[in-house]
Amino acid sequence: MDEAEFATGLRELTADRMRGASELARQSLALCARSARATPAASADALRGLLERRAAALVAARPSMAPIGNLLARWRDALGPVAGDELSMLRHRAEAAAQELIESSQQALGRAAAAAAKQIGDGKTIITHSLSASVSEALHRLRGRSTRVIVTESRPLLEGHTLARKLVQWGLGTTLITDAEVGLFVAEADVALVGADSLCADGSVVNKVGTYLLALAARDRGIPFYVCCESFKLRMLGMPPVELEEMDPGELAAPELGDLRVRNCYFDITPSRLVSGWIDEQGQRTRWEANDPEPCGGHFPT
Amino acid sequence: MDEAEFATGLRELTADRMRGASELARQSLALCARSARATPAASADALRGLLERRAAALVAARPSMAPIGNLLARWRDALGPVAGDELSMLRHRAEAAAQELIESSQQALGRAAAAAAKQIGDGKTIITHSLSASVSEALHRLRGRSTRVIVTESRPLLEGHTLARKLVQWGLGTTLITDAEVGLFVAEADVALVGADSLCADGSVVNKVGTYLLALAARDRGIPFYVCCESFKLRMLGMPPVELEEMDPGELAAPELGDLRVRNCYFDITPSRLVSGWIDEQGQRTRWEANDPEPCGGHFPT
Repeated sequence: MDEAEFATGLRELTADRMRGASELARQSLALCARSARATPAASADALRGLLERRAAALVAARPSMAPIGNLLARWRDALGPVAGDELSMLRHRAEAAAQELIESSQQALGRAAAAAAKQIGDGKTIITHSLSASVSEALHRLRGRSTRVIVTESRPLLEGHTLARKLVQWGLGTTLITDAEVGLFVAEADVALVGADSLCADGSVVNKVGTYLLALAARDRGIPFYVCCESFKLRMLGMPPVELEEMDPGELAAPELGDLRVRNCYFDITPSRLVSGWIDEQGQRTRWEANDPEPCGGHFPT
Repeated sequence: MDEAEFATGLRELTADRMRGASELARQSLALCARSARATPAASADALRGLLERRAAALVAARPSMAPIGNLLARWRDALGPVAGDELSMLRHRAEAAAQELIESSQQALGRAAAAAAKQIGDGKTIITHSLSASVSEALHRLRGRSTRVIVTESRPLLEGHTLARKLVQWGLGTTLITDAEVGLFVAEADVALVGADSLCADGSVVNKVGTYLLALAARDRGIPFYVCCESFKLRMLGMPPVELEEMDPGELAAPELGDLRVRNCYFDITPSRLVSGWIDEQGQRTRWEANDPEPCGGHFPT
């Protein structure tokens, strides 16, 4: 996998606006596995240096998404600091470690989704925002159980349409609304369920912009607001403040006026005080034991 | 103005998704004035009956918009119950009454906007939602006074683009965001300011869907949430429960899936407990003296 091929993969990851952090973290690991298997290198040390540079580039590509950093950090640890490695042994270990992390991430997602489905139970109306792999999996487990789902379209790229298609295929009663209709339709839901791109150390939730509004409406209307994601979504202590990615304003198709500023921020932060339960592969917890006394990020202090 | 011509005007009013309740109320009055001036009638009684039928049709066309009902009720009162009128006298009185109400509605709007501009003052960043004639007028009065405005695009028809164009023309520093970004950008505003399609008797605000979310975010972030509208926006006691208009789902351009329900509700209700101040042509009040102990509407109990 030469530099040009890796650069293409990196560009795809940077430009992906539809898939969530879990999927993009696994895609990053897959790029690492292919780099380990199929990049020409003169020595084990040369390969290790190259793999570490590529991992760092992947982490920097999507700063709002903690799992990319977390899983690639574990992957780098698994490479080991052994000097004088054989090149073929390092290739094998690096590829196997990436594959294992992909599988364990997939398993964690499945377990978190199962825990969410169990927590919610049969016959409920669920409101969700955007497209989350873990929420999607949880809803798949709730098919055939008199579940109804209210899905936001999720501007600007309308990934809610993708979720709505899946739900209809699975036979779930599905209603599609605009992002602005969230306040109105929370009144028809029993529970709000979202995924996360990252969890901050204080339990705040970095997710598709609009999630904070859903959480506010859920609180105001007295329905629980659950976050379902794998534990490796947690931003580790000592990580820099959350950077909320801003994308091409052109996606909003706004009128072109010289002095008009168009802002296309993809993420917001929902303070942990608005979260009724955090659900991961271990199950649910309704109280967050803060790992960090500091609230999450500079953009959105609680 | 024969029935076909009136029917065209009525259809335009029913289909109008861009203009707010004030403008459509004045448009209704203009249709009444033209009906009075230029509809063939055999007698004053015949004309009176026709005008009353047309007024009732105009009121029924936009049930979320109290001012149409209020202004047309005043207009019908102005026709007077006099039997044996001369036809030409009735025509004149009906047309003059409609014109006076149009003018007094325009004056009330200007005074409410002036009161809002005064309340807000210089050098502020204002966040607003959708396109409101009174808010637009208030912002016009704040030009050249270091005012900045954050405008939502306002799905599905993006009337926020129209407001943004005006503001840029007037030289106001303007930022356009998606409806979902409201939670993020409230943090950059000093004050939230919206108009209203109707005010309920308990002070709740019927306005473009998404207004409730802006009010929740403003409360959560500790900035004031002001409603600026003329007093004839108030739903009178004894009016039926608020009917929140639902429009063509096709406007959302959602995928066509047999079992997918697409909901395109244009209005929501913001409970009065989230309103910091009601501003009308009399000035501002920060407490609502309830005219009616019942909360507003069945769709959205407080």
